[in-house]
Amino acid sequence: MANILVVHGPNLNLLGKREPGVYGVVTLDEINEQLRLLAVELGAALRIEQRNGEGEIVDIIQSNADWADAILINPAAYTHTSVAIRDAIAAVGLPAVEVHLSNIHQREPFRHHSYIAPVARGQICGFGVNSYLLGLRAACAYCS
Amino acid sequence: MANILVVHGPNLNLLGKREPGVYGVVTLDEINEQLRLLAVELGAALRIEQRNGEGEIVDIIQSNADWADAILINPAAYTHTSVAIRDAIAAVGLPAVEVHLSNIHQREPFRHHSYIAPVARGQICGFGVNSYLLGLRAACAYCS
Amino acid sequence: MANILVVHGPNLNLLGKREPGVYGVVTLDEINEQLRLLAVELGAALRIEQRNGEGEIVDIIQSNADWADAILINPAAYTHTSVAIRDAIAAVGLPAVEVHLSNIHQREPFRHHSYIAPVARGQICGFGVNSYLLGLRAACAYCS
Amino acid sequence: MANILVVHGPNLNLLGKREPGVYGVVTLDEINEQLRLLAVELGAALRIEQRNGEGEIVDIIQSNADWADAILINPAAYTHTSVAIRDAIAAVGLPAVEVHLSNIHQREPFRHHSYIAPVARGQICGFGVNSYLLGLRAACAYCS
Amino acid sequence: MANILVVHGPNLNLLGKREPGVYGVVTLDEINEQLRLLAVELGAALRIEQRNGEGEIVDIIQSNADWADAILINPAAYTHTSVAIRDAIAAVGLPAVEVHLSNIHQREPFRHHSYIAPVARGQICGFGVNSYLLGLRAACAYCS
Amino acid sequence: MANILVVHGPNLNLLGKREPGVYGVVTLDEINEQLRLLAVELGAALRIEQRNGEGEIVDIIQSNADWADAILINPAAYTHTSVAIRDAIAAVGLPAVEVHLSNIHQREPFRHHSYIAPVARGQICGFGVNSYLLGLRAACAYCS
Amino acid sequence: MANILVVHGPNLNLLGKREPGVYGVVTLDEINEQLRLLAVELGAALRIEQRNGEGEIVDIIQSNADWADAILINPAAYTHTSVAIRDAIAAVGLPAVEVHLSNIHQREPFRHHSYIAPVARGQICGFGVNSYLLGLRAACAYCS
Amino acid sequence: MANILVVHGPNLNLLGKREPGVYGVVTLDEINEQLRLLAVELGAALRIEQRNGEGEIVDIIQSNADWADAILINPAAYTHTSVAIRDAIAAVGLPAVEVHLSNIHQREPFRHHSYIAPVARGQICGFGVNSYLLGLRAACAYCS
Amino acid sequence: MANILVVHGPNLNLLGKREPGVYGVVTLDEINEQLRLLAVELGAALRIEQRNGEGEIVDIIQSNADWADAILINPAAYTHTSVAIRDAIAAVGLPAVEVHLSNIHQREPFRHHSYIAPVARGQICGFGVNSYLLGLRAACAYCS
Amino acid sequence: MANILVVHGPNLNLLGKREPGVYGVVTLDEINEQLRLLAVELGAALRIEQRNGEGEIVDIIQSNADWADAILINPAAYTHTSVAIRDAIAAVGLPAVEVHLSNIHQREPFRHHSYIAPVARGQICGFGVNSYLLGLRAACAYCS
Amino acid sequence: MANILVVHGPNLNLLGKREPGVYGVVTLDEINEQLRLLAVELGAALRIEQRNGEGEIVDIIQSNADWADAILINPAAYTHTSVAIRDAIAAVGLPAVEVHLSNIHQREPFRHHSYIAPVARGQICGFGVNSYLLGLRAACAYCS
Amino acid sequence: MANILVVHGPNLNLLGKREPGVYGVVTLDEINEQLRLLAVELGAALRIEQRNGEGEIVDIIQSNADWADAILINPAAYTHTSVAIRDAIAAVGLPAVEVHLSNIHQREPFRHHSYIAPVARGQICGFGVNSYLLGLRAACAYCS
Repeated sequence: MANILVVHGPNLNLLGKREPGVYGVVTLDEINEQLRLLAVELGAALRIEQRNGEGEIVDIIQSNADWADAILINPAAYTHTSVAIRDAIAAVGLPAVEVHLSNIHQREPFRHHSYIAPVARGQICGFGVNSYLLGLRAACAYCS
Repeated sequence: MANILVVHGPNLNLLGKREPGVYGVVTLDEINEQLRLLAVELGAALRIEQRNGEGEIVDIIQSNADWADAILINPAAYTHTSVAIRDAIAAVGLPAVEVHLSNIHQREPFRHHSYIAPVARGQICGFGVNSYLLGLRAACAYCS
Repeated sequence: MANILVVHGPNLNLLGKREPGVYGVVTLDEINEQLRLLAVELGAALRIEQRNGEGEIVDIIQSNADWADAILINPAAYTHTSVAIRDAIAAVGLPAVEVHLSNIHQREPFRHHSYIAPVARGQICGFGVNSYLLGLRAACAYCS
Repeated sequence: MANILVVHGPNLNLLGKREPGVYGVVTLDEINEQLRLLAVELGAALRIEQRNGEGEIVDIIQSNADWADAILINPAAYTHTSVAIRDAIAAVGLPAVEVHLSNIHQREPFRHHSYIAPVARGQICGFGVNSYLLGLRAACAYCS
Repeated sequence: MANILVVHGPNLNLLGKREPGVYGVVTLDEINEQLRLLAVELGAALRIEQRNGEGEIVDIIQSNADWADAILINPAAYTHTSVAIRDAIAAVGLPAVEVHLSNIHQREPFRHHSYIAPVARGQICGFGVNSYLLGLRAACAYCS
Repeated sequence: MANILVVHGPNLNLLGKREPGVYGVVTLDEINEQLRLLAVELGAALRIEQRNGEGEIVDIIQSNADWADAILINPAAYTHTSVAIRDAIAAVGLPAVEVHLSNIHQREPFRHHSYIAPVARGQICGFGVNSYLLGLRAACAYCS
Repeated sequence: MANILVVHGPNLNLLGKREPGVYGVVTLDEINEQLRLLAVELGAALRIEQRNGEGEIVDIIQSNADWADAILINPAAYTHTSVAIRDAIAAVGLPAVEVHLSNIHQREPFRHHSYIAPVARGQICGFGVNSYLLGLRAACAYCS
Repeated sequence: MANILVVHGPNLNLLGKREPGVYGVVTLDEINEQLRLLAVELGAALRIEQRNGEGEIVDIIQSNADWADAILINPAAYTHTSVAIRDAIAAVGLPAVEVHLSNIHQREPFRHHSYIAPVARGQICGFGVNSYLLGLRAACAYCS
Repeated sequence: MANILVVHGPNLNLLGKREPGVYGVVTLDEINEQLRLLAVELGAALRIEQRNGEGEIVDIIQSNADWADAILINPAAYTHTSVAIRDAIAAVGLPAVEVHLSNIHQREPFRHHSYIAPVARGQICGFGVNSYLLGLRAACAYCS
Repeated sequence: MANILVVHGPNLNLLGKREPGVYGVVTLDEINEQLRLLAVELGAALRIEQRNGEGEIVDIIQSNADWADAILINPAAYTHTSVAIRDAIAAVGLPAVEVHLSNIHQREPFRHHSYIAPVARGQICGFGVNSYLLGLRAACAYCS
Repeated sequence: MANILVVHGPNLNLLGKREPGVYGVVTLDEINEQLRLLAVELGAALRIEQRNGEGEIVDIIQSNADWADAILINPAAYTHTSVAIRDAIAAVGLPAVEVHLSNIHQREPFRHHSYIAPVARGQICGFGVNSYLLGLRAACAYCS
Repeated sequence: MANILVVHGPNLNLLGKREPGVYGVVTLDEINEQLRLLAVELGAALRIEQRNGEGEIVDIIQSNADWADAILINPAAYTHTSVAIRDAIAAVGLPAVEVHLSNIHQREPFRHHSYIAPVARGQICGFGVNSYLLGLRAACAYCS
């Protein structure tokens, strides 16, 4: 059975609650529910965390390093600014899958670059909630 | 009556206590006192917070999003590095006024760029404490 | 029933035949076989094409524009140099999913930029053959 | 009593007359009227000038250098191209406040850089007419 | 007697525990032990802290500002992204010595630039644990 | 009598057929018809070709080099990426006029640069079908 | 009947008088004569102005904004440096056609960029006097 | 006996026929004749191909991959724009020698960079036809 | 007898009157007096002009083109922004000597580049008033 | 016993003799004396050389390659310009320690980059003479 | 009979003696022996020099300028930094052939640029000792 | 009486002897003769040196530091590459005047930047031998 750590980055707790024009109408709880349903189908156990702080996300990655077989992470704003999260992923040595709801290549130029991608196994972006579901399939493929 | 969330970024708690050549002799308490006096005159209620952590500032913006009508923020060092605070301001959808004590255009080049400015209604810098007072006037103008 | 056009870019016909250290041991025929099996499961019809020429890929996109409901494309080397394929995808107006076998963010800098991504719905990279399979799921999601 | 030189740069004479979608519906005369009302309240005397020529603006700054205690300037297009106006402000040695109606950080990239800001005491942008009124308050604060 | 604040940045608590190929086999506790032994020899008192959060490191620098005579800091990932820690060091006005285990000039380009170096007295990198010991000597030289 | 080779680049065969919001409602056949009518008035003979392939366009320029007196070319996407077409135009030594339907300076930055312009006699862009008609007049002026 | 404002930028009054190797042998009067002849044929009225000053050109565009239906402008050196003329054209909201005698893409790199092009309907360069005549045809096409 | 694939890129079929000032008076047939004579002397068998299309050159490299022991290639214009040909050379894994008739370091800046050189064993440029002959010697040295 | 046109650019009329720390204590009249004394010694006639406007300086260069044998010019701020003055100097075809009071290489980076230098015979900077006197000697050397 | 080659680069012979504001009051002889004292303590033998010529420094590194166990080098100005010294260090294959008296990160930008650092084991800068002493300790650590 | 000056740049005297993984096992004497054998075959006289100093290489080029008919030079590290050697080659006006043992395009980016190539007739790199032999053939071809 | 050290950089000993198209027909001896004649008139003593080596020029500047009152230097190729000569000039603290025969702003881009200019009092370029004579006048002006 695969153990997957799911990490949601800053501001993702607001999904579906404010600014639906930007963030859609699906809430984070609903995304997590869809992830849990798919996890059952794929035979995976999930631990799901959301944090607004860069250091807190580093803490979570470290403290789950022994339990988890893979990481599914949407680093949100920290995608573009955090070397610390990158170093944490590289240090724990787990396969990581990076996902984004939106197509970051169609947004502002500073969102085109990811500090996380070079230490992830792969990156999925632009498919809305489906990015998470496809990412969970990809993460599970490293856990057999 | 206008509800204004005032956010002071990292290291501003040191104002007037250390390095007066850089940070002046006025303390953060004295700035807050002046802000409160002007708020009475303008008929505004204030909630004032200072934090050194990026994620903590994101938390404060989110947790005050329903109470506040506008945000007055001096992001200090995070002006130049935080996409997370930028996204938080954009997500809650409140009018924000960005202020700086010093003229950031006369300091090091990396301080010339602001991640916050594009999601703020406007920016005021270079007038010392007066930047805050002018900024409060500007913020209140969005609350009628 | 969804009609999906699958386009393989230049040199992908060599997969599994030469340079296994770079391109793996799976052949393009085997990838296509896996795509066809998943297509049956998802209720999709596939047309699969591989071309080494930029203009030929433009031709294929145009000539299948009326039949296809979505495009699954690995532009390979043309990812980084072709404005013509980008314009073809934009012109036919079909949802497109861009996939890559390798994590392009871990390769040479000139492979980090994609001309195709801004006109695609999303991008998946780094999961080997699984990039294609996840991409087919993503493409089918636009065809109901 | 404070003497303030107010300088409006090129094309600002068109305010409120053409392209209201870009330049709003308030005319330059109305802005000047609001400035004069606030000047009475603050005990300041104003000289107000608008010019389309770079050299003419240099002339005005020089010829008012003995009368004025401070300068309030919206350099408009010359913000981004004029070293001559920058040098004039530096040469006369008066405190200068730079204002912009729009938030220049949200417009084209070439409008993000200001040649004037490094020689001004501060910069205010993005508050519409209020940028001028806040700027007048800031300028008067240097005149006591 | 010199009081030295020793600050370890994010992920350094993993030293010697994971990824020995990258981080070596020496643990942070062993580094701290060596620092304490040398401190006795040099007649220095140490306070040693490790944090994963940027704001927490700012807090520690501020709260030890009155006790410490100098700072020995390995900012790790925040070396390259934190203006807030830079500002904290500058604000407390203590001599600071920046150390790195690895030679940052031999790693990825984004690790070649340090926001901290311009406000530090000096920088030592590339000598493994010895970077810390040499750094402690350097720091004590400012405390007599 | 002037012999003019008219070359249409990739995707221009889709004009008026798909994406009218981007490409207008006029078809390539209608543009060619207008060109032929004007050619009669100006006493010119036309050969008109459209190709999606870069190498095919090089072939056409070479194979018509002895017949043609001038070239009228809309390189479309190859404007920005093709050194080969540039070299072909330079090699055959015929006067060339570069035309574009849209104002390429108002589109994405990568469309602002033309490899073709330095070897053409001139460039006309932004006038829709009229770009072609003005270009034909310009080309004929080199053929007397 | 179309009213066309023709603006010649700095130094164009020297055409045909000095430096024929650079500026040809045709004088500005002769160009204007050819423009007037073509205007009769096209049923257009012309106002023709030449100025060396940036501000003077802004004045001319503004003062003719009510009379003119379109603008034909050769901004010469100001093509590459003037945001003020760009703003004037955008503010008056008239269709503008930018022309150049020489092929600016074959001259020094700083002449390759135009501040005017993004606010013009189109640009014609490289055909000598014919650039003006083709430009007048293009401008008249916006006046029916 | 060494088998050498000789590939001539776009427009090289025009050598000696047009623009002798740029391309010299020697034809491609004469170059090939000299190559064949030297091949006899060196005991090598040659297959010589010229193509104008990028995809066609990829095809030729692939289809000769089993026969050839080494590749001698003048990529001409594709030197500077083709990632596809680079990938083809890398994929077939044969030693490749890149040659240029002219000294590309003395031409336009965009010709100074080669996408091919990093995957070639070496590069020879600037000796006219002799570049090819020296290149053939170099290629044969990999075939014993 | 040599006829020399001396052109002083914007803000130079303030020399010695304001900001002596920046501009020294010598007035422009005193510089002109020294130039006139040296002109007598060298047998030269001078016409001396100062203007703040870019277009006015173009006018002066054009209107003195028939009288002058050479130009001595301190373009001041326009050194770094004016293509129009550059074109005027090139168009009149007179030898020009560019002078600066200060060493522009020791000032802000944007002052290191000169649009004028490539069309001048030479450049002298950094010697205060002596830059003008040496420049007059250099200019006269072209007038025999 | 460790054999250490100490190399002082150009102009360091002037230390303490001229420009004390820049180079301090300690002479090179005094630095060498301190190095020799520490060497006795550490059980190391030193050879100390100062040269102003790049080639001479290469000679010294080569001719001491068999005697030395490690190199302590302050390349001074050649830090930023010499590939030859870099290659010499790499070629002899000895561990090298790079030292600088000043904090090069606080000086001009061109001094931030070091050609030497990537081939050195580590770099120490900013501690004045102590940089050398710390560096000698570091060098000796490679010699046991 | 051709007179060829052979110049070996810095560190090449170490060939085959140290770091065989980088510099191979062939010594400079053996390279020179092979060059002399080939020279006999080609009817050429050689003068062979190796120097570590930039100025010394300039001296050698100058002092052999009357004797030599051509120069064969491996500038080694000075390839990338020496304008002085470039100027010396250009000044003596002899045909020069630049050679490198390794493929400099596969090494660090700063080794991709050559100051020498633009003044050489051609460049050969990547063939080990064969680069010198092919280069001698190329040099002799200029001496008949 | 003023003591002036005159330093000629690499390859200047070839002046007038080779490549007159590039270096003119005047020899270095003739330049020195003209300098000596003017020195008599100005009451100055000269020491004149020419060197091809960077380190040798540093040596000369150092060894004449006590005798000389000012330096007149044409660094030639080292203008663009030598930090060592720059540091030598700064270290000895003498006023230095930088001269060039040609207008470096009209040559290759890499010759536009000078490492020497920021530490010189001023720069004179483009006047041939007259650059030296004007430079000697400028240097003497610092020696009274």
